[in-house]
Amino acid sequence: MNKGILIVVSAPSGCGKGTILAEVMKDEKFYYSVSATTRSPRPGETDGVNYHFLGREQFEELIKTGGMLEYAEYCGNYYGTPRDKVLEKINEGKNVILEIEVQGAMQIREKCPEAVFVFIAPPSVAELRNRLEKRGTETPEVINQRVSEAAQEISFAYRYDYVVVNNILEDAVNDFISVIRAEELKAENQKNIIDEVLKNA
Amino acid sequence: MNKGILIVVSAPSGCGKGTILAEVMKDEKFYYSVSATTRSPRPGETDGVNYHFLGREQFEELIKTGGMLEYAEYCGNYYGTPRDKVLEKINEGKNVILEIEVQGAMQIREKCPEAVFVFIAPPSVAELRNRLEKRGTETPEVINQRVSEAAQEISFAYRYDYVVVNNILEDAVNDFISVIRAEELKAENQKNIIDEVLKNA
Repeated sequence: MNKGILIVVSAPSGCGKGTILAEVMKDEKFYYSVSATTRSPRPGETDGVNYHFLGREQFEELIKTGGMLEYAEYCGNYYGTPRDKVLEKINEGKNVILEIEVQGAMQIREKCPEAVFVFIAPPSVAELRNRLEKRGTETPEVINQRVSEAAQEISFAYRYDYVVVNNILEDAVNDFISVIRAEELKAENQKNIIDEVLKNA
Repeated sequence: MNKGILIVVSAPSGCGKGTILAEVMKDEKFYYSVSATTRSPRPGETDGVNYHFLGREQFEELIKTGGMLEYAEYCGNYYGTPRDKVLEKINEGKNVILEIEVQGAMQIREKCPEAVFVFIAPPSVAELRNRLEKRGTETPEVINQRVSEAAQEISFAYRYDYVVVNNILEDAVNDFISVIRAEELKAENQKNIIDEVLKNA
């Protein structure tokens, strides 16, 4: 059996990444990696579903022993990707999806050069602004800040392997699935299959 | 506008390559590169459709001036891929398909490292033998020879970028299309699009 593929996905907020991944996750071949954090669960959050909630010492021990594929500290709390579960699922042949921001993705790039990096972008920064304004839940200042953060993140898109622009949701989902299928079809990932084809030749 | 992609496709005979490519060619984004040859047209063959029929001097002049992306001589006749038409179509944004055998493909690999190499394989060598036997048009000796040639060609599959196994035709067509779509989505081919997304940011 072939190993699964490690897929790192980043996107500025407001790009529809969650909706795309929800569609993709309908296929059982995918496994969504749940992040770990030291922050306290919010009402309604479940351990192991929204996050793995860890104590600070436990998290730091994992960092020390190489148990985190990537991590960062925000507002006094750690956030990171526990290594073991990811490797276990990949060995089971699952395609593992890590949804992380740009800095974390670049950490993974160094540790796992075989991972596949996908950046999801909005059709345009102007359209992202439109979407945020239509929601009407943020002040103009917050919208300005989020748009400027998004533009900064998008400027990192060149450092990913693939860029999927979410203009029409269905197309973006198909594009994402095409990328993963193509990765599976790479000759280097098909060695077992070629050997099988040649059996009894 | 982005340039098109140069796609080199090889497959042993009997793998259904023609059927797969006929399906793919229904999309106008693809252009099928017609080979050139110095052999005489057979009854029913049309110049520019089946082959570009060239004189020997004309062909050799093209070789000398770098006008052939690859070529080979079989049974005293030249066969090759004229360069100019391929580049013209790629510059027009078309994905150009070259259907050539393994040796020619390896020549293109050296001249056009940006090309995408797809190998189409039968589900197994045993199944290829089955298919040839069922056809009932060949003697056992010819079948043995074709199967052994196919096995030798398949052992080159590792040197291609992608391997598509034609087990179920529809899946093989979708796999082929996924590969090309993924190539289009590569960050290096999306620079224009990322610049567009960032416009007025």
